Amino acid sequence: MSGKRSGRKARKSQRASEGRSAHLRVPFISRKIPPYEILDDESLTRIETTAERILAEIGIEFRDDPETVRLFAQAGGQVTAKSDTIKIIRFEPGMIREILKTAPARFTQHARNPANTVEIGGDSVVFAPSYGSPFVMDLDRGRRYGTIEDFNNFVKLAQSSPWLHHSGGTICEPTDIAVNKRHLDMVYAHIRYSDRAFLGSITAPERAEDSIEMCRILFGADFVDENCVIMGNFNSTSPLVWDGISTRGIRAYAAAGQGSIHLPFLLGGAVAPLTMAGALAQNLAESMVGCALTQLVRPGAPTILATFLTSMSMRSGSPTFGTPEPALGSLVMGQLARRLNLPLRSAGSFTTSKLPDAQAMQQSMMSMMSAVQSGGNYQLHSAGYLDGLLSMSYEKFMLDTDVCGALHAYLAGMQVNDDTLAFDALAENGPGEHLFGCAHTLSHYQSAYWDSELNDDQPWETWDEQGGIDAMTRANARWKETLANYTAPPLDEATDEALRDFIARKKASMQDAWH
Amino acid sequence: MSGKRSGRKARKSQRASEGRSAHLRVPFISRKIPPYEILDDESLTRIETTAERILAEIGIEFRDDPETVRLFAQAGGQVTAKSDTIKIIRFEPGMIREILKTAPARFTQHARNPANTVEIGGDSVVFAPSYGSPFVMDLDRGRRYGTIEDFNNFVKLAQSSPWLHHSGGTICEPTDIAVNKRHLDMVYAHIRYSDRAFLGSITAPERAEDSIEMCRILFGADFVDENCVIMGNFNSTSPLVWDGISTRGIRAYAAAGQGSIHLPFLLGGAVAPLTMAGALAQNLAESMVGCALTQLVRPGAPTILATFLTSMSMRSGSPTFGTPEPALGSLVMGQLARRLNLPLRSAGSFTTSKLPDAQAMQQSMMSMMSAVQSGGNYQLHSAGYLDGLLSMSYEKFMLDTDVCGALHAYLAGMQVNDDTLAFDALAENGPGEHLFGCAHTLSHYQSAYWDSELNDDQPWETWDEQGGIDAMTRANARWKETLANYTAPPLDEATDEALRDFIARKKASMQDAWH
Repeated sequence: MSGKRSGRKARKSQRASEGRSAHLRVPFISRKIPPYEILDDESLTRIETTAERILAEIGIEFRDDPETVRLFAQAGGQVTAKSDTIKIIRFEPGMIREILKTAPARFTQHARNPANTVEIGGDSVVFAPSYGSPFVMDLDRGRRYGTIEDFNNFVKLAQSSPWLHHSGGTICEPTDIAVNKRHLDMVYAHIRYSDRAFLGSITAPERAEDSIEMCRILFGADFVDENCVIMGNFNSTSPLVWDGISTRGIRAYAAAGQGSIHLPFLLGGAVAPLTMAGALAQNLAESMVGCALTQLVRPGAPTILATFLTSMSMRSGSPTFGTPEPALGSLVMGQLARRLNLPLRSAGSFTTSKLPDAQAMQQSMMSMMSAVQSGGNYQLHSAGYLDGLLSMSYEKFMLDTDVCGALHAYLAGMQVNDDTLAFDALAENGPGEHLFGCAHTLSHYQSAYWDSELNDDQPWETWDEQGGIDAMTRANARWKETLANYTAPPLDEATDEALRDFIARKKASMQDAWH
Repeated sequence: MSGKRSGRKARKSQRASEGRSAHLRVPFISRKIPPYEILDDESLTRIETTAERILAEIGIEFRDDPETVRLFAQAGGQVTAKSDTIKIIRFEPGMIREILKTAPARFTQHARNPANTVEIGGDSVVFAPSYGSPFVMDLDRGRRYGTIEDFNNFVKLAQSSPWLHHSGGTICEPTDIAVNKRHLDMVYAHIRYSDRAFLGSITAPERAEDSIEMCRILFGADFVDENCVIMGNFNSTSPLVWDGISTRGIRAYAAAGQGSIHLPFLLGGAVAPLTMAGALAQNLAESMVGCALTQLVRPGAPTILATFLTSMSMRSGSPTFGTPEPALGSLVMGQLARRLNLPLRSAGSFTTSKLPDAQAMQQSMMSMMSAVQSGGNYQLHSAGYLDGLLSMSYEKFMLDTDVCGALHAYLAGMQVNDDTLAFDALAENGPGEHLFGCAHTLSHYQSAYWDSELNDDQPWETWDEQGGIDAMTRANARWKETLANYTAPPLDEATDEALRDFIARKKASMQDAWH
């Protein structure tokens, strides 16, 4: 007995050093359950047909980018001038889909640590932190504008989580650095404090170029020309507009052979129809056109269809997140993406809550479950999202990454074989006898169930004796502990110096701009 | 403009009096999205075949109920005596499925208010409160043993929610009333304070009889003989045991033509295999046998297959709820129930959290989303569940019923037609123009999106000015407000008197028993 006990203790201690549910760790998830398909073919075809009608009869407006207009005109688009710099282009039904045939259904984004390289498309699922909040929030200091220190902290927290696969992009806005320079510090932070893949700048074409250039320093120019090592996350200006800042950036990434994501932000009733079928038709039209532009610039460039659906509180006009209609919309967008044979960025851990409380996780789960069930491949906003994306929350980040871990177990699906069917385990002792000590239990107890790092699964009495602490308070302690234990992944010193030199030269060449 | 405005105001005010999302209210949900099917036919067949092997080779143990043994022996079961009172019965493959062919795939449970009558089976979804907690909990008084006052409160809160459809059963244990008498007060509370369908007692056969007798007083004996008006929720004693208390109760409900639910409580590693495929085979075997007993007593009696899967923290041996493996198990159990053509009771708003916090709703959502996606028909534990079912929480009840409302919108699915595709709404103004005032927005703004009663969707500034209140604190205010506004549904005075008379006579006939 004592030998058995100490053996078990040794296994336990080894396991503790690996972290909980270590057997589930992967550089990215290969989804083992089918996606959840809620619409029939006829309905999907009607949505697609409406998207084609939007493109053919209403058209898409392009602003301040003659080269994009030239490319689409050359490909057969019908250009109408709204002004010197604003053109509407109409696309014959099927034209955009034809252009998209050169886009890869699945591609690889390389990380500087090859063990962290991800694949995007098909059955792959990649989790990345939330993106774009001007504010950050924690329980100690409340809500405040984000700084580069916050940004670095979140890159470190993301790198420390085994349940994220990608470092993301603008995790929060580092508002203490000039608008025209902060992209340099953000890209540097992703490279320096993480060894995962990441997103570059999209706020100006020259910032996109800087982001790619820093990757050339990191990976070598030849490698970058042949491989995807960075992506840009671009927004259309719904309804039905792509502005020049976005299309110039899209062209920059595509020309360099790098990836891009094409995301309409569809607030129903404001910039899209309130009804989800119509919002999806518009979503498809806008996102397909962004994706198609990449193929005109460089056929075969990696490109990701994307969806970000919200609902609206008709009382206040505020967007609401984590509600049921967008959850259904995410599922259908997955079906549409598969029919188009393109990778999909789907929803994330969305919420309108202002605290990492019950509301936050209720809404987050409705949104995130739908995101992974949709078959979405790249899940930006997987962790930290609070207050309708206005705030990046330290505590919610920890709660969400724990959910990302649980989703590793969920997406692993159910194995059905003689071992898991466990007939012998029940037959061993027969009716009425517990299974604590049976061979089947002993061989499976370490890996049968997801083991949360953050949830309190203790009996009430133990929990009460330990202070009766709620989840957001535990998350508060956990992010501090995680930051304190963080160690940076190794980075070649010459590369680091070259990057810092590039940044210094770039910064010296510009006056600070704050808007 | 002013005419339009006042018209809008009138609609708004009418709507406020009806409550939010009033257009979604139904006596029970008819699910409009397909269930989520994650296993292929071959895997499902392997689980079914294993269940049949369990029944044929290991068998089910029956304790202290010779009549049940006689019924199964008569139907072809092979009886082995373990003792005078304990028998093991083995069933040839296919035998139990054959017996189940007389069970209805869908049936009606009548409520005393016919408008609240529910259907169970097929595409129907019925939400009921949590069931069986010894403790209750609220933010003011913490955790304590439940009393009949708590019980009555929860019946009133359930009746007040438009998003539950059924009054449930032992919402919490009224521990201030003797064990052998409390069923009378519980059934009375369901009748008096609710006008929805409900569950009766199962803790002793005579208590089951009392519950049915009270329904005869309420509905009339002839009506009760011809219609299902009450159900019992029975537990097997896993692994592979049905004890006499349960089987006698099952026989009582079936003989009276009333409904019954057949639920194994499968704590993996303790009373079931740790691996979900094996747990499901066992679940199917145990639940099918309970259901089959009803058909031997009275062919055609309403019966519900049921599943309650948990995981276990291997560190503490505690059960854990709202984890990913049981979520997958629920989905597969839905597939198995449909192949068997029986209604299903699936998971609910499960959690191991000790507070109605972020953990509680995160786990609840994983569990409850899977329950409704499974195609489950009767969702006990839809509201109030806390601390692994040890506590019924006032605040969680309010949070959960709000989720039940959101699930009405989710299960309504997505309509795809010319109106919802909204091509004209986008064409009306063209690219770059918002849709706030367009005809499509005006005709859909009241019903396009689920409108939560409890979530705070206001801008951060407004929320902060109002005190920055978290969801559990809002829920605390809400249950008090709801109880204060509760009015009992009308009940015929003579019926009420007859019920109270029955209870008084029954109570006078027994000494109090406290265990």
